[in-house]
Amino acid sequence: MNYSMLIYILGSVLKIEGIFMALPTAVAFFYREKSLAAFLAAAVLCLALGIGLTWKKPSDMVFYSKEGFLAVSLSWVFLSIFGCLPFVISGDIPSFTDALFETISVFTTTGASILSDVEAMSKSGLFWRSFTHWLGGMGVLVFILAVLPMAGGRHMYLMKAESPGPSVSKLVPRVKQTARILYAIYFVMTVAEIVLLLCGGMPVFDAVTLSMGTAGTGGFGVRNDSVGSYTPYMRNVITIFMALFGVNFNIYYLILCKKWKQAFRSEEVRMYFGLILLAIAVITYDVRKLFPNILEAFQQAAFQVSSIMTSTGYSTVDFGKWPEFSQSLLLMLMFVGACAGSTGGGIKVSRILLMIKSVKRELHTIVHPRARMKIKMDDRVVEEETLRSVNVFIGCYLLIYALSLLCISVDDFDFTTNFTAVAATINNIGPGLGAVGPAGNFDGFSRFSKYVLMFDMLLGRLEIFPMMALFLPKTWRRH
Amino acid sequence: MNYSMLIYILGSVLKIEGIFMALPTAVAFFYREKSLAAFLAAAVLCLALGIGLTWKKPSDMVFYSKEGFLAVSLSWVFLSIFGCLPFVISGDIPSFTDALFETISVFTTTGASILSDVEAMSKSGLFWRSFTHWLGGMGVLVFILAVLPMAGGRHMYLMKAESPGPSVSKLVPRVKQTARILYAIYFVMTVAEIVLLLCGGMPVFDAVTLSMGTAGTGGFGVRNDSVGSYTPYMRNVITIFMALFGVNFNIYYLILCKKWKQAFRSEEVRMYFGLILLAIAVITYDVRKLFPNILEAFQQAAFQVSSIMTSTGYSTVDFGKWPEFSQSLLLMLMFVGACAGSTGGGIKVSRILLMIKSVKRELHTIVHPRARMKIKMDDRVVEEETLRSVNVFIGCYLLIYALSLLCISVDDFDFTTNFTAVAATINNIGPGLGAVGPAGNFDGFSRFSKYVLMFDMLLGRLEIFPMMALFLPKTWRRH
Repeated sequence: MNYSMLIYILGSVLKIEGIFMALPTAVAFFYREKSLAAFLAAAVLCLALGIGLTWKKPSDMVFYSKEGFLAVSLSWVFLSIFGCLPFVISGDIPSFTDALFETISVFTTTGASILSDVEAMSKSGLFWRSFTHWLGGMGVLVFILAVLPMAGGRHMYLMKAESPGPSVSKLVPRVKQTARILYAIYFVMTVAEIVLLLCGGMPVFDAVTLSMGTAGTGGFGVRNDSVGSYTPYMRNVITIFMALFGVNFNIYYLILCKKWKQAFRSEEVRMYFGLILLAIAVITYDVRKLFPNILEAFQQAAFQVSSIMTSTGYSTVDFGKWPEFSQSLLLMLMFVGACAGSTGGGIKVSRILLMIKSVKRELHTIVHPRARMKIKMDDRVVEEETLRSVNVFIGCYLLIYALSLLCISVDDFDFTTNFTAVAATINNIGPGLGAVGPAGNFDGFSRFSKYVLMFDMLLGRLEIFPMMALFLPKTWRRH
Repeated sequence: MNYSMLIYILGSVLKIEGIFMALPTAVAFFYREKSLAAFLAAAVLCLALGIGLTWKKPSDMVFYSKEGFLAVSLSWVFLSIFGCLPFVISGDIPSFTDALFETISVFTTTGASILSDVEAMSKSGLFWRSFTHWLGGMGVLVFILAVLPMAGGRHMYLMKAESPGPSVSKLVPRVKQTARILYAIYFVMTVAEIVLLLCGGMPVFDAVTLSMGTAGTGGFGVRNDSVGSYTPYMRNVITIFMALFGVNFNIYYLILCKKWKQAFRSEEVRMYFGLILLAIAVITYDVRKLFPNILEAFQQAAFQVSSIMTSTGYSTVDFGKWPEFSQSLLLMLMFVGACAGSTGGGIKVSRILLMIKSVKRELHTIVHPRARMKIKMDDRVVEEETLRSVNVFIGCYLLIYALSLLCISVDDFDFTTNFTAVAATINNIGPGLGAVGPAGNFDGFSRFSKYVLMFDMLLGRLEIFPMMALFLPKTWRRH
């Protein structure tokens, strides 16, 4: 373990966080809020610590896979701990555990809240929640890679550990360029949503925060009823953008390069939109009687499907009151999640696709026991190594899921609440069903359960292995 | 596809079933029950059809993996359809769907019932339920292999498709001998339980039926409160035997051969007993206040853990009223299941063990990306092929689980009921939680959902792939 390099990266992360806090500080200044001091204090603390830790440039810049995993997981823990300070200092969320829960929830773009009255929060606090959604969506280390000059060519390890999906593909040969292109697309799409929402007459503050929450597939809104009280036009804009931010960003790059054919050939994206459309159709039919007309049912179904599938978690209605079939379908989509290489959570469509292909191959061997079929995706052969890692990912996911469920069941909530609380956090969705449904929140859980769920959120966002590396004594050894 | 061979095997299965029906017929005669005629009629029908189908010996005795899969899955479907006839004819269960559900439930050793009043059933009907549990536990085709003279050396395929676990090991080089040894151990252990129960003063009928239900890890009792009203001694005997029938039968063979060291080295069996003891300890602590003293709590906890983990499904109390933590733990044990090569259901301890080992290896590669560790079990290297098939099994299991859950949620039961109904059937347990808990039954589901759950029971018992083969057009092709 190259400790000096690790400390240097953590220092850089804190510096960046300190600089980012300038934005909510400005918002607090603009709205003349008391939380100004809290944000200033936290920003100064982050900057001071960050400068201190990066004072000495590490002599040994070499780092490998394990340094990458550890740097990413520790960065996220640090980001969350320091990111929650403004809430604690300003008194928006006085309890440290609750503030940390809320902050991990925003950084991991989960959107699971312990607050029942969001509107009582300061504007700057709300802005910070949405802004961190935006940062967490694309990744803070990816941002650092894009802007900071860093020597050594091993930064792929950082990007690999922070980006969702079974494999990360560099758009262009250099990691720095790739990170810049990703953030540029991300920024432009976010601005596009803001503009469209403003056109519909949404207040500037709401448009900016909701767009950032959509982009990161986070899900924290600024009103108590999430997105329920906006106009149908605004809800439809959000529906479409949620779905768009769940698409693999490589596709947008391909479209930018006018490689249309290659973009439309993506099996993952086709399955993703196929599932969305199918789910919308089925749920529209299932809930048609709950709404005055079929168009309204369609719009509401589309919103919920788009919100859940991409792991955003905005809500317009309490789908906990929908028929059980629609609820089960939404619950299943929580596990499927969005595309790899998007800002969304869940197991990811590409993993599910590879799982289905593996099963198909296994069935094939019943008929032809000695034939060894190759699995293809997008007309390319998938390496056995990738298949293996997908399978192990799912196995590990299940084991952690089971353990988490067992841990939080100590609080004696009903099974539906427990099961969906874990589903909503490990898949970075936000609301579940039962007591943690769209109309409820996570405040009822004990401190112990909250920490379990915080761990699940980080684990889900970083796709398990970086967080697991924290607990391996071997990764901490010098050699 | 070698159709003549397939028909011959199905005919043999029907003949054997007809012969087996002589037993409940004798019971009906002994108790002077009206159902005598029903059993006679069904037996004659089975025998006639069986003799008809096996009239012509197939010229081509060669068969491969796909014939093995298809023969086993079709045999189980035939066994269930003909096995339910006595219930329909006698009027014990007038509805064909319900009778089929009950029969698939007994053959697959699930023990999920659609009956609320078991005691209203005829003694011969109750005996038939328990006897088919016993047959289904070790496998009907394994029985045929043990007793019928069959030419051709490919019968391993039949045994492979019917025996639970990721790999089947022949105890001795010849399949026939292996099948005989297995049934001999099985028979002796069942008799031992009957004798011990009789020593405690249990009526003969109850001792015989309950022991057969324990041996097959089935779970159907002969009283409305399952095993609740027997003496503590009897319940303890059943607790111990349930746990014993969940052990890999290879171990008993090793013990018979006095290979003690090899028997005690089995990692699967050690993990199996480790989990049982741990779960009993934790649940005893969790439910200690619900019972007059700690001994009573311990006994009840031991009974439920043993019953659920081995997928038997007998119950003494309604654990749906236990604290949520104990319920969640029991639910998790439903998925783990018993050992491979036992009569129990679930995913099987050895698969979970291999899954954990795969995860460990993956974590190891974070630190040493280029090292390719071999996975060992019982000091032997596990082939990558076995690991792959375990992973694909779990993937397929999850996909089918999700689809089943979605299908039965149409009935609009609550999530807990739906989730555990699928868990209880696909893992061949019996009772779940909610409306299908120990105090409830499966009768409330629609006809459609019942068929989905029947499919899940067969799928779970035959470990997915034989049943899936039924739906592959390729397997039905002549070449």
